[in-house]
This record gives sequence, C-alpha cells and structure tokens, in this order.
Amino acid sequence: MTTTSKLCLADIQAAAERLKGVAHRTPAMTCRTIDELAGCRVFFKCENFQKVGAFKFRGAYNSVAKLSDETARRGVVTHSSGNHAQALALAAKMRGIPAYIVMPRTASPVKRAGVEGYGAEVILCEPTQAAREATAADVEARTGATFIHPYNNQDVMAGQGTALLELHEQAKELDANLDAVITPVGGGGLLSGTCVAAKGISPQLRVFAAEPKGADDAARSFASGQLQPQTGPNTIADGLLTSLGDLTWPIIRDNVEAIITVTDEQIVQAMRLLWERAKLLIEPSSAVVLAAILDGRFKERPPVKAIGVILSGGNVNLDKLPW
Amino acid sequence: MTTTSKLCLADIQAAAERLKGVAHRTPAMTCRTIDELAGCRVFFKCENFQKVGAFKFRGAYNSVAKLSDETARRGVVTHSSGNHAQALALAAKMRGIPAYIVMPRTASPVKRAGVEGYGAEVILCEPTQAAREATAADVEARTGATFIHPYNNQDVMAGQGTALLELHEQAKELDANLDAVITPVGGGGLLSGTCVAAKGISPQLRVFAAEPKGADDAARSFASGQLQPQTGPNTIADGLLTSLGDLTWPIIRDNVEAIITVTDEQIVQAMRLLWERAKLLIEPSSAVVLAAILDGRFKERPPVKAIGVILSGGNVNLDKLPW
Repeated sequence: MTTTSKLCLADIQAAAERLKGVAHRTPAMTCRTIDELAGCRVFFKCENFQKVGAFKFRGAYNSVAKLSDETARRGVVTHSSGNHAQALALAAKMRGIPAYIVMPRTASPVKRAGVEGYGAEVILCEPTQAAREATAADVEARTGATFIHPYNNQDVMAGQGTALLELHEQAKELDANLDAVITPVGGGGLLSGTCVAAKGISPQLRVFAAEPKGADDAARSFASGQLQPQTGPNTIADGLLTSLGDLTWPIIRDNVEAIITVTDEQIVQAMRLLWERAKLLIEPSSAVVLAAILDGRFKERPPVKAIGVILSGGNVNLDKLPW
Repeated sequence: MTTTSKLCLADIQAAAERLKGVAHRTPAMTCRTIDELAGCRVFFKCENFQKVGAFKFRGAYNSVAKLSDETARRGVVTHSSGNHAQALALAAKMRGIPAYIVMPRTASPVKRAGVEGYGAEVILCEPTQAAREATAADVEARTGATFIHPYNNQDVMAGQGTALLELHEQAKELDANLDAVITPVGGGGLLSGTCVAAKGISPQLRVFAAEPKGADDAARSFASGQLQPQTGPNTIADGLLTSLGDLTWPIIRDNVEAIITVTDEQIVQAMRLLWERAKLLIEPSSAVVLAAILDGRFKERPPVKAIGVILSGGNVNLDKLPW
C-alpha cells in the first residue's frame, strides 16, 4: 500500500511563515573559482549555518509547531542518531515540550551529548532498524508522544522545502534566475520538499539530485521506476544511508530530472574544494552535490546556467577529517 | 619623524563606493552558543568569505583603484607572503596591470602558487626584513611600479575600514546597535581603519583589539604610550607577526580602549569553537578576537551589549590543523 502525499507549494509557504524569525535565513554564497570549474553560476544555500548545523531544523520545527497544544504537551519521539535528532530536540525545547530520541547503543557519546544538551531524553536500543522502530513505538505507547519521522512526514518535507524558497529569492537579489536546483538524497525529505517548492515556483525549474554510489537506492529506484530499499550502505556520506520513504518517493519519481551518483573519492575532493576555496565548512553528505556538479554529466541537456545547491549541513568530526 | 595620517570617515566611505559590486558584502553571522558564552550579542563579519579569503582584498583594491591610469600602468609592488600578497595580485589583475610580489625564499610553494595563480610576478629574496625592503625598492626603481605597503598606507587603511561600515548596517538589519567592535591587530591596518570608521559612525562606539601574547607589540606600545617594535614573534597566529606602522599607531593610540592579549592555547580553543559551533572556517589570526571576548577581561566597564567582530580571514592549511 502506498500512501500519497498531497504536499503543495502552499504547505511550504505556510512552513516558511512558521519559520520566520525562528530559523536562520542562511546566506546564499558564490565562489568564482567554483563557477569556473562548474561552467555555470552556482548559488550555495548554506544550511551548515542553520540551527543545529543542518537544514533538518526546518522540518523538525515545522512539524512541532503544527501540533495542537494538547498533542504537543505529550511530547515528540523519533529514532535518529543524526541531525534530525538534534533538530527535533531543539524544536521541542523551543516549544517547551518533551522530546524522546531513540538511538542505537553504538551512537557516539558526542551525538548523545548533543541531543541531551537540548534537554531531550535519550533511549538506547540495539543497532537494528527493527529495534529502533519497536523502541520508538514503545515510547509512543507509553508517553502519548507524537512520532516525527526524519523524512517520511509531510510537515517535515514541507519544512525542508523552505530552503529553496529562500535561495530562489536570494539568487534574484544577486541578479540571477535559477534554472536548476540540486540537493543530496538520503531518505528524500529535502529532495521531495525541494521538488514541490521548485515546481511551485516554476514548472521550468529543473530538479536534480546527487547520491553516493555506496548508498544508491534513489538512483536505482529512479532507473527502475520502483522503490528500491537501501541495504548495506557503504559511504563516507553518513547522512545519506537511509532508504526513500513511501511519501517522498512518488514526488521524487515524478519531478526529478536525473539522480547523479558519485564516488567517495569525488565526495572528499569536492568537500576539500569547498573548505579550501569557498571556506565553507560542510559535511561529506553536503559535498556530494558539488561532486555531482563537477562530474558534469547532467548539465548539458540543455545547459544549466544558474544552479541552486542546498548545502545540507556542517556537522563533522574535526578530529577525523577525510584527507 | 612621525608621519601623520589624516584618514577620516569620508575616505572610508569613498573606499566603500569603489568596492561596491567588486568586493563581496560578506555576511554577518550570529551563534547563540557563542552569545551565551560571551555574555553579550556577538556579530561576526565573515571576511573569511571575502575575495582571496581575507579582508586584505578591501585595502589592496582601494589602493590600486586610486592610482591614476599612467601610474597604474607601471604596476604595483609589495613584500608579503601572506593574504596581502594575494589581495594585491588579484586587485592588479582586475585592473589589468602588473603586480610584483617580493617573497622570502622560505615562503611555502602553496603561497607562491596562489599569488602566481593571479598572474603576479614573484621575486624571491632572503628571509629578512632588510632584504625584503631592499628587493622591493629595487623592483620599484627598475619598473616604476608603485609600492603598496600591506598596512602602513592610508588607502589600504581606508579599504580595511569598510568592513565595519557594512557590519554596522548589517547589525541594524538584525535589530541590534553595536556598542563595541573588536579586531585582531598585527600591523594595524584593519584596526586603524576600523577606529576611524567606528568613531566616524559614533564617538560612543568603543573599539577594542586582540593580540597574541607571542607578538604583543601593540599591547606593549599601548601600555607605554610609545611605538614598540615586534622582535622574535612566536605565535600560531601567523598573520599578526608584524610591528605597527607609523601611520597606524597614532590612530590606534588615540582611539582604542584596550588591547587584550591571549595565549596560543586560548586561540586554538576559540578557533575550534568557531569551526565546531558556528561552522566558520577561520584562520588562527581571526580566532584571536573570540579568544579575547571569551577571556572577558575588557567587557565590564561598562558592560558591552552588542559587539562587532571582524573575522579577518580563512586561509589555513587543512593538512596541519592545530588540534
């Protein structure tokens, strides 16, 4: 059974209203060296500067804000060891409600401390998908908290789509009209929200996605026309390991023009280029997109002139850089 | 004999006009975690995102732009192995005139390649101040090029002051009125330009400076009231090794409220904090300022509420991070 999402531009605009004055309007940056390498103008939406260091704050805040007071009072729950966990913890803290975060026992102490620093309660479980889901369901039953999926949730998807609305405006302020946008794809929350925002702005605005070869479920799904799960992912881009969801997949299938896969070597090269030349401190999962642009395969039919890039986040371990 | 600078706000405003559409209007960023640690609002002017990765582009471009066509045609010359070298090379390239950069034989191949990448001619010399000056004078005599000092030059100082004009506006856009500003101090180009800009905006706008303990000539000069040279500097903040100049010093003496010195350990801690929490990729010479703010000594008389910070640059060796 496939659930169908009715996500539309108005939902994203409403999310943008909720986020006004709450999320950072992160800067849009350009870098002449990268424009020259890419052969087109590139506008980076710097969500590494977003609260909690990633775009995930947008979707988490939007879903928490939409809860009724009575529902909200019982709190929110999710399973994540990544940026969504911190984002939901902060969004809950801002509303003054409890957040329960289910994490695998193997999650790093730093990530656990990050979530607890926002006042969330961490519940540890075995490091399997089944254990995560069972533990989250258990917390839901026990507390009455609302489950907020990291990406397969319409309010989360709407929140993530707001980054493109801002970038489109910001590019105009820099005298450019975006003719394309590209995002990384993991579970598809950012990509599906971006699709709806883009096509709402203009049906001519082309949408591309970038994915690591070591976790290429979206590219395989796209090629086959059938949702394919991700098993045994193996890539440095640790924010992109998950499978697409049944809400995000149909939107991606119907709106994306191409999904470009890149190797970890290309990802590390692109990451270093962004750090060195653009001084943008971004995580490997964000560098995937620049790697795809530099790979260049997708830009010729017809040529892209001005592309928006959502740089998804900047949460890296500074003691273990990949070069 | 002391030369006196007549630098005034109008010079800085004229420089800002010249830089419009040429230099980046770099973003002003805030970070709640750092506000909490600092005990006041902190507005970071992100000159790490400036062309060539440092504020130095402002001063270099302004001085090149002010040359008459006939003078400009013969080119410009400087001695520097740092950000000013790249900045002057780029400014000359943009005007289509030659740039001659005198560098010590010991300068890293990366820095040399950076300057040559902008089309400048590199002239190597022995790694002493006397050799640099003699070699630059020789180039000047041979080519007729105009010598552009890295900081002891009124047009350079005027250009550097433009960053504060922008930051003051940007803080207003974020509903804040700066009551203080702090910059790092090496030769004093940025600090003196900032002094004149600040006092031109409002005599009540307080100016502070931060300096590494291992190169504390400005603090010693300030304490004694007499210009003291820097000999044998020893600090990780390699952009702040030089002595004040006779043009920059009197402005600093008359307008700065305090110069705070910090240890290399404090600098590295502040640098990591900016990378980790604010995702701002800055060089040690920029972190000096946050180290001074966190040190806290200067902020109590009377308390600072909203401080502007010029983050001077982001040119670091990613293979040799200090943690």
